[in-house]
Amino acid sequence: MSATLILHEDPCSGNCYKIRLTAALLGLPLERRFYDIRKGETRTPEFLAHVNANGRIPVLQIGERFLPESNAACWYLADDGSCRLIPTDRFARADMLRWMFFEQYNHEPNVATLRFWLGIIGEAGLSDAQRAAIPAKRTAGDAALALMDEHLAAHAWFAGDSVSLADIALYAYTHAAGEGGFDLAVYPHVTAWLARVAALPDYVAMD
Amino acid sequence: MSATLILHEDPCSGNCYKIRLTAALLGLPLERRFYDIRKGETRTPEFLAHVNANGRIPVLQIGERFLPESNAACWYLADDGSCRLIPTDRFARADMLRWMFFEQYNHEPNVATLRFWLGIIGEAGLSDAQRAAIPAKRTAGDAALALMDEHLAAHAWFAGDSVSLADIALYAYTHAAGEGGFDLAVYPHVTAWLARVAALPDYVAMD
Repeated sequence: MSATLILHEDPCSGNCYKIRLTAALLGLPLERRFYDIRKGETRTPEFLAHVNANGRIPVLQIGERFLPESNAACWYLADDGSCRLIPTDRFARADMLRWMFFEQYNHEPNVATLRFWLGIIGEAGLSDAQRAAIPAKRTAGDAALALMDEHLAAHAWFAGDSVSLADIALYAYTHAAGEGGFDLAVYPHVTAWLARVAALPDYVAMD
Repeated sequence: MSATLILHEDPCSGNCYKIRLTAALLGLPLERRFYDIRKGETRTPEFLAHVNANGRIPVLQIGERFLPESNAACWYLADDGSCRLIPTDRFARADMLRWMFFEQYNHEPNVATLRFWLGIIGEAGLSDAQRAAIPAKRTAGDAALALMDEHLAAHAWFAGDSVSLADIALYAYTHAAGEGGFDLAVYPHVTAWLARVAALPDYVAMD
């Protein structure tokens, strides 16, 4: 890989951490540029014009090109022909993407949002609408964790026979779910899988 | 492709239609099994045990294996080495996935949900919580459509130089956005792109 890789990120974001963890497992150097989403630093005119018109981090910069969406950035890094984090089997590869779409649709909007609201902003800083949305997000987040636990009761990893991007995508906010008030102790297969991910060679922790 | 392909679907779902459209553009035969999500037919014990523990459609059945998540199913169909709907360039391939994750995170929960609530259930059938969520979903849905319009002002397709799965994923609910009360006339580049998709050889319409 010749182009310089720059991660535009907020270190408190699990979506950004996914990319750091993927790069670490692949042995790729990443430059890091920091933004504070609580201060609106990803909504400035300059950020919208030059980094991401969607006003969101993470964005992976590859030379002069910009790639938003955490799971797409992880895919780019791993799509190097080495097959270390993307299965070679056609069904397993699609099944990996299946869990990555599940992560963005069923898991992140609940597990990550409650961590952000309760663990980072704090309940006193929430709007009435946010406070009213907590019970539904609690239920949906627990449903996502229960589905993961059911899968992990019979499988060591989410797709195929070894660690893949699906595990990295789901690990990021699952291992921090306690900060959002989720009780991981009731998901023993999830807990065992979290330990397997953390024991991978070249693993890096979230800041 | 030797295994029989069966689509477990509700014909009113744009997520299901994505898979039908992908298969049509690739010339692949699909068997269809119908469920009515409004009658809870994807939450029965049999469906949860044998088709999808997440209680959702679409599910693509490939022989004896089941693949949930619409965008993952589209990927499976197109990942046949032909490169007809998945770009060969590494950046363009990741950029295609970027728009597919954007679709599931920023577009579908707003544009598709308002179509389901207002165009299929009907406003009289909504709960108070659903009714209260409409303005935020309207704003977020319009933001997603505006971002698409900005991209399409400078590009014919979402990723790379030709039609890809990103276009199919975004087409499904965008072309039906009027049913949810969105005014597509204010997005001229989106409107022109919708016509390009509908003019593709072997295109099929939503039921």
